[in-house]
Amino acid sequence: PSSESSSQVKPAAANEKQPGSENIIVTSQDGITKIMFNRPSKKNAITTSMYKEIIHALKAASTDNSAITVFTGNGDYYSSGNDLTNFTDVSPNSIEETAKNASILLREFVDAFIDFPKPLVAVINGPAVGIVVTLLGLFDAVYASDKATFHTPFSELGQSPEGCASYTFPKIMGPAKAAEMLIFGKKLTAGEACAQGLVTEVFPESTFQKEVWTRLKTYAKLPTNSLRISKELIRSNEKEKLHAVNAEECTVLQGRWLSEECMNALMNFMSRKSKL
Amino acid sequence: PSSESSSQVKPAAANEKQPGSENIIVTSQDGITKIMFNRPSKKNAITTSMYKEIIHALKAASTDNSAITVFTGNGDYYSSGNDLTNFTDVSPNSIEETAKNASILLREFVDAFIDFPKPLVAVINGPAVGIVVTLLGLFDAVYASDKATFHTPFSELGQSPEGCASYTFPKIMGPAKAAEMLIFGKKLTAGEACAQGLVTEVFPESTFQKEVWTRLKTYAKLPTNSLRISKELIRSNEKEKLHAVNAEECTVLQGRWLSEECMNALMNFMSRKSKL
Amino acid sequence: PSSESSSQVKPAAANEKQPGSENIIVTSQDGITKIMFNRPSKKNAITTSMYKEIIHALKAASTDNSAITVFTGNGDYYSSGNDLTNFTDVSPNSIEETAKNASILLREFVDAFIDFPKPLVAVINGPAVGIVVTLLGLFDAVYASDKATFHTPFSELGQSPEGCASYTFPKIMGPAKAAEMLIFGKKLTAGEACAQGLVTEVFPESTFQKEVWTRLKTYAKLPTNSLRISKELIRSNEKEKLHAVNAEECTVLQGRWLSEECMNALMNFMSRKSKL
Repeated sequence: PSSESSSQVKPAAANEKQPGSENIIVTSQDGITKIMFNRPSKKNAITTSMYKEIIHALKAASTDNSAITVFTGNGDYYSSGNDLTNFTDVSPNSIEETAKNASILLREFVDAFIDFPKPLVAVINGPAVGIVVTLLGLFDAVYASDKATFHTPFSELGQSPEGCASYTFPKIMGPAKAAEMLIFGKKLTAGEACAQGLVTEVFPESTFQKEVWTRLKTYAKLPTNSLRISKELIRSNEKEKLHAVNAEECTVLQGRWLSEECMNALMNFMSRKSKL
Repeated sequence: PSSESSSQVKPAAANEKQPGSENIIVTSQDGITKIMFNRPSKKNAITTSMYKEIIHALKAASTDNSAITVFTGNGDYYSSGNDLTNFTDVSPNSIEETAKNASILLREFVDAFIDFPKPLVAVINGPAVGIVVTLLGLFDAVYASDKATFHTPFSELGQSPEGCASYTFPKIMGPAKAAEMLIFGKKLTAGEACAQGLVTEVFPESTFQKEVWTRLKTYAKLPTNSLRISKELIRSNEKEKLHAVNAEECTVLQGRWLSEECMNALMNFMSRKSKL
Repeated sequence: PSSESSSQVKPAAANEKQPGSENIIVTSQDGITKIMFNRPSKKNAITTSMYKEIIHALKAASTDNSAITVFTGNGDYYSSGNDLTNFTDVSPNSIEETAKNASILLREFVDAFIDFPKPLVAVINGPAVGIVVTLLGLFDAVYASDKATFHTPFSELGQSPEGCASYTFPKIMGPAKAAEMLIFGKKLTAGEACAQGLVTEVFPESTFQKEVWTRLKTYAKLPTNSLRISKELIRSNEKEKLHAVNAEECTVLQGRWLSEECMNALMNFMSRKSKL
C-alpha cells in the first residue's frame, strides 16, 4: 500500500539525521508503530548503536498512542543479526571489559522485548539470522514471506543461544526441533518455521506486504486496552521466568565470548568472509 | 450408533424437567458420561444457570462409575460460548455486583475443569466460540468434525482470555499462533486447530459421530484406575499454576466487564445483532 | 557408511564378553559415542541388567572425548521397551521388595538422561515402545526411519507414564495429543510423531542410516564446548522440574505395579502372548 511505501523513506519526526540515512527508522500511522532495520547494504546487521536505538524505540512505543508495534527490515534481508564487527573492533587489552559491556547491553535489549506491553509483530521480509530469530519467541505474531529463512548458527561461532530462545524454542517446538536449530545450527525455511510454531503464517513474496499490512491495520482498530491487557495477561504467566533466563543466557554468553573456542571460530569466519 | 442417538433425547434419570427440555443433558452408558449442550435454537449459548448445571454435572461425573467424561453439543453448533444476555439483563445500579458474581462463577466453573479427575474428551460437532474454545486446553482429547471452527473474539468485545487459555494456548501452539487467536481474534478451521495441537484429530462430518464414539467406547474399556491415575499424574504437574492463572484471568475480566470499552463493544454487538 | 556398519559388530574395548554377544554395545568414533540396543531376537527389550549397563554407559559418555551421544537399535526394532519378564520372574513373597527396587532403578535410569551433559540423539530404526518412547522428550534430536512407530500402551497394562513424559509430552505436543498417547495408548506413525514435535525428521528407510550418520558426523565437528554449554543452558531451565516429575512418576508407578489391576493386565498380556 502506498502509505506504507512512502513511510519507509520518511524519517521519524524527532530524528535529526539526514532523511533515510538512519539505521533504524521508526514511523507511526494507522495505530501501528513500525520499527524498521535500515542498513540494507550490510544485510541489516545490528551494530552496538542500533541495539541502543531499538531499546529507545521500544520505550517510546510503549507509551505512544499506537495499538501495535511491528518490526521489519528494509531490502532483501530481515536482519543478519549481530554485526560481528562489534567483536572485531576491540583492542586486545580491553576484551574483558568489552565482553562485559556487550553482555549488559544484550540483557537490557532483550529485557525491552520481555517487558514490551503491547502486541508485538514481526514482518519477516527475508532471511533472519541469530538474535533476530531467537527474539521471535517473544513476539505475539510473526508473518513471513516465503523467501524468509531462520538460522541460528551459534555453535559454529563458538557461542550459545540468547533472546530467551533456550527457554522459548523448546516450549514452542519441542526439544527435538529446538535443539537442532539452537545447538546444531539447522537453517529453517519459512514453511518449516511455520509448521514448528515459530511463524504464525507464511505468504507468497508477491502479495506478502499487501496482505500483511491490510491485516495489521484491521487488527490495530480493535479496542486498544483489550489488546494491551490481553497481551500483558499472557506475558505475566512467564515474565519472571523470562527475565531469569535472559540473565543466565547473557552470563553464559559473556563466558563464551572470552573463550579460545569462540575467538578461533570468529577469526575463521572473518577470514573466510574476507576471501569472498 | 443407535444407542447414542437415543440417549440424546432421553433425560438423565434424576432430572425432573420435561424430557428433552433441559439445556444440559447428562447421560451415562458404556463407561462414558456424556454432558451435552442442548439449547440448539440459541446455538447452545451458555446461560448463568447452565454454568451451574455443568459444575454440578462435573462433580457428579467425578465419582460416578464411568471411565471417561465427554462434552458435546446438540444441533449445528458445539456452543457459541457465553450467552451475552448474561450481561444485558442487568440493572445499571447493580453492574458492579453482577460483574463480581459473574467473575466468581466463572472461576468456580473453570476450577471444575482443572480439578476433574478422569479423562475429559470434547466431541466438537460444529462451531465453537469463546469459553468453550479456551477450555479445550484443559481437555485430554479433542475430536472435531471438519465443519467445526474455533473462534475467541475477546478483543472485539472489549474482553480478555479466560479458561486458562492465556497459559495453555501459548504452551500448546506457541505465542505467535496463540496471540493471533486470543488477542487478534483469528478464527481457525478444524484443520488449522489440529495442526496447532488444540485438536487431537479431525473427521469428515459424514462419519464423525460413528468413528468418534466407536473409538471412545474402546478407550472406556481400559483399566479405569490407570486412566484416572495417569490423567491425575499429568495434571499434577501444573494444577497449582492453572488455578493461579484462572484466578488472575477472572480478576482481569471482572475489570474488563466494568470498562467503558467493553460496554461500548457489547452495545455495538447487540445493536448489530438486533438489526439482522 | 562402512565404518558404522563394522562398528555394530565390534565390541567396546573394555567389554570382556564374547564379541557381539552384549545386550548393549557401546562404540565411539568420529566424535560420536553410540549406545546400541543389541538384543534383536527379543525386539531389544530392556532387562534389569541392561538398565544398569545403560546408566553406566551414559556416565562414561559424559566424560569421554565425544561431542555427541547417540542411541539406536540393532535389527528391526529400536526397542520394545521394558522386558515384561522383569515382572514375572518374581516370587510372590518378594513382590513389594521387587517393586520398590524396580522403582529405584527406573528413577536412577531416567535421572541419567536428565543429567546427561552433551547433545543426546536418538536414531530410531524401527518400532519403539514404552520407556524408550517416553524418554525421547529428554533427547536433543530424534531421527526416525519411516518404518518406526511410537507406542506407549501404559493403561492397557494397568500402568502409568514414566521417563518424564507426563510433563514433556504435553509440553511438546499439547495435552490433547499427549493424552491420547499416554492415557489411551494411541500408536503413532513416524510422520505423526514428527508433526507433533516428538521426532525431529523422518527419512525413507532406504537412505535412513546413510543420511542420518552423515549429518551427525558433521554436527560432531562443531565446537565441542559450545555444543555442551548450549545443551546445558537449555536443560538448566527445567532440570529441577524434571527430577521432581521423575520422582513422582516412579512413586506412582510403584503403586501401580502392586495393584490388582496391573497384575491382571500383565497376566492377560502374558497369557495372550504365550498362545501366539
